[in-house]
Amino acid sequence: MNLSLLLLDEPTPTFAGVFTRNSFFGHPIAHAKHMLTMPVTRGVIVNTKVANVGSDGGDRDILRIVRVLAERLGADPEDFFSASTGVVGWKLPIDEIEQAIPGLVTQTTNGSMDIFARGIMTTDRFPKVRSTTIGQGSIVVAAKGAGMIEPNMRTMLVFITTDIDIDRRELQGCLERVAERTFNRISVDGDQSTSDMAIAFSSRKKPAVTAQQFEASLLRVCAPLAEDIVRNGEGTGHVMKVRLSGAANDEEAVRVAKAIVNSPLVKTAINGNDPNVGRIMAAIGDDLGNHGADLDVGKAVLKLGEEEIFSSGRFRLGSEAEARLSGYLVRAQIDPRLKGYPPHDRCVEISCDLGRGRASAEVLGSDLSQEYVRENADYRT
Amino acid sequence: MNLSLLLLDEPTPTFAGVFTRNSFFGHPIAHAKHMLTMPVTRGVIVNTKVANVGSDGGDRDILRIVRVLAERLGADPEDFFSASTGVVGWKLPIDEIEQAIPGLVTQTTNGSMDIFARGIMTTDRFPKVRSTTIGQGSIVVAAKGAGMIEPNMRTMLVFITTDIDIDRRELQGCLERVAERTFNRISVDGDQSTSDMAIAFSSRKKPAVTAQQFEASLLRVCAPLAEDIVRNGEGTGHVMKVRLSGAANDEEAVRVAKAIVNSPLVKTAINGNDPNVGRIMAAIGDDLGNHGADLDVGKAVLKLGEEEIFSSGRFRLGSEAEARLSGYLVRAQIDPRLKGYPPHDRCVEISCDLGRGRASAEVLGSDLSQEYVRENADYRT
Repeated sequence: MNLSLLLLDEPTPTFAGVFTRNSFFGHPIAHAKHMLTMPVTRGVIVNTKVANVGSDGGDRDILRIVRVLAERLGADPEDFFSASTGVVGWKLPIDEIEQAIPGLVTQTTNGSMDIFARGIMTTDRFPKVRSTTIGQGSIVVAAKGAGMIEPNMRTMLVFITTDIDIDRRELQGCLERVAERTFNRISVDGDQSTSDMAIAFSSRKKPAVTAQQFEASLLRVCAPLAEDIVRNGEGTGHVMKVRLSGAANDEEAVRVAKAIVNSPLVKTAINGNDPNVGRIMAAIGDDLGNHGADLDVGKAVLKLGEEEIFSSGRFRLGSEAEARLSGYLVRAQIDPRLKGYPPHDRCVEISCDLGRGRASAEVLGSDLSQEYVRENADYRT
Repeated sequence: MNLSLLLLDEPTPTFAGVFTRNSFFGHPIAHAKHMLTMPVTRGVIVNTKVANVGSDGGDRDILRIVRVLAERLGADPEDFFSASTGVVGWKLPIDEIEQAIPGLVTQTTNGSMDIFARGIMTTDRFPKVRSTTIGQGSIVVAAKGAGMIEPNMRTMLVFITTDIDIDRRELQGCLERVAERTFNRISVDGDQSTSDMAIAFSSRKKPAVTAQQFEASLLRVCAPLAEDIVRNGEGTGHVMKVRLSGAANDEEAVRVAKAIVNSPLVKTAINGNDPNVGRIMAAIGDDLGNHGADLDVGKAVLKLGEEEIFSSGRFRLGSEAEARLSGYLVRAQIDPRLKGYPPHDRCVEISCDLGRGRASAEVLGSDLSQEYVRENADYRT
């Protein structure tokens, strides 16, 4: 039934959430936004088979699920979030879910984020959990997501728990700022899901730290988790890390960096270990041109790894440089058919200074492999 | 040497051009824009091996090519356009080109657009030429392009000849408006080239028609040619035709339609003959959400072929409908490894009424196959 339960030891009034900006959002997103107005929560039930988007009675199905769950636990139906990913368009198999809930409640091990992270996997290659200690407590974050990944201002399924005492409004602000700098700066395929959500819970059992300390810790744990999501992308053969500087403003910095990681021609060249770096400059010019912005080629500088490949208005290529660059790409490669944990954490590092201003951003993306196409052409069969 | 020459019988003062909006544009684009200020032209020399973008001395290389060509023909160097596509970043093999020009001049058959269209092919599957008669004359258009195709306001390599007498400024306006409605509404992979250009020449040998008549004829010949370019896309297995209506304005109509044809998840589902139509709604919501626009799901209507798949806020799917839709996709399929002319001209027709306003647009796109990835991962090897 692909059901998982993140059950807190006791209800907490301190929780926060951020959600997809897709205008065709799922029923669980609407329900979760309502949940943010509730006084307390006890956790979240996750179904990863059907996304429950645009389905007839999808909102009522959620209410039925949380009611059955609450009855089983002697709790209130309004204590539970419901999160879903999976096929968009299908109706939830509500009878089967209802029958599976008693077993789910029995099996759920309180506090084990490892088991939970494993339970919510679908096309994910490996369970994604990251944690950090802070003050006398800790932050533990679990995530799933491998395709339909380009969160914009919001994110995919991410579940954050902490025991640090923190104000609910402060937790919400913290989560929004950290998501903006981590999950919102990654892309597997440029497709923003209908079902993204990140929710955070605090048990408040450990003494508070400063707001700055908490936010820094949350950033420290979410940044590598966001990278995990890309490295575990469907058919991912290379992780690209684009450092874009010299942009006119922050929006342009993120937009141009995403244009590079989302260009099918850049993605396929990297996939083939081909340092066809002209495509990177073409992707930059494509995005700037479509936004009415000029590129002063005399000022732009592009590097792949440590190698400068464009500066002073021209490419600095040659057969020796290309051989070095190709070797660099080979060393950063992952088997696109990989299942399980990645063999290394190397990225293809692309640095570009646009020479237009002082804004910068870092964005992570995936290459595009035949395996991605195969997996998504056959997704439902 | 991948050189071709479109040589007019005699110089003409009546010509026009539209160009890529990529901010990192090629040296031939800068040269061609300058050419539009010249009193007459005699034609265009095309190299399809190296795009001559961002290369050291790339502008001087063009001047050398047109000088050698002009000397051979007893013409003026400023009579010739130079167009290029191919690898971005490499320098033109200028010595080899110079040596090849005498042979090129000897072989060129004046007036044969068929031979010219065949000569400029690279990864193209078949030569693309379309023609129409108008008044006492005709319009003949040749094009190349199969990847790095998403012209925005401008287009790829397109060459238009006519003998109809027309004012030069009128020809320019006509070309801009028709390109906007044809070549600028197609996409193979969402990557706008550094090197797109469409240029039109009139010999003025046949009597003028009304401006409306000329524009209608130009549209009639360019629209199927634009479809040819998509059908001949790299690894294309299905051509998608999106009719987007009910948009708030023209810009939104084109943008949402392009979001559908450029979604990797929509493209791969279509490639796999999988009517995973939830991905179409997700792509629509993704684009609208990123532009701060709401979708009233109660008003939106989505059709695939003749089948209504979303309306009144919910999907209308079932195993019978899915079987019919899958059969529809199978019938519209082309072999992604196809070389040569396509076996049919069927499209996957996607109609969507957003229910937001009165604007509409039609956009053509390609699916995404493993063959596209293979071809572009190995492009230079």
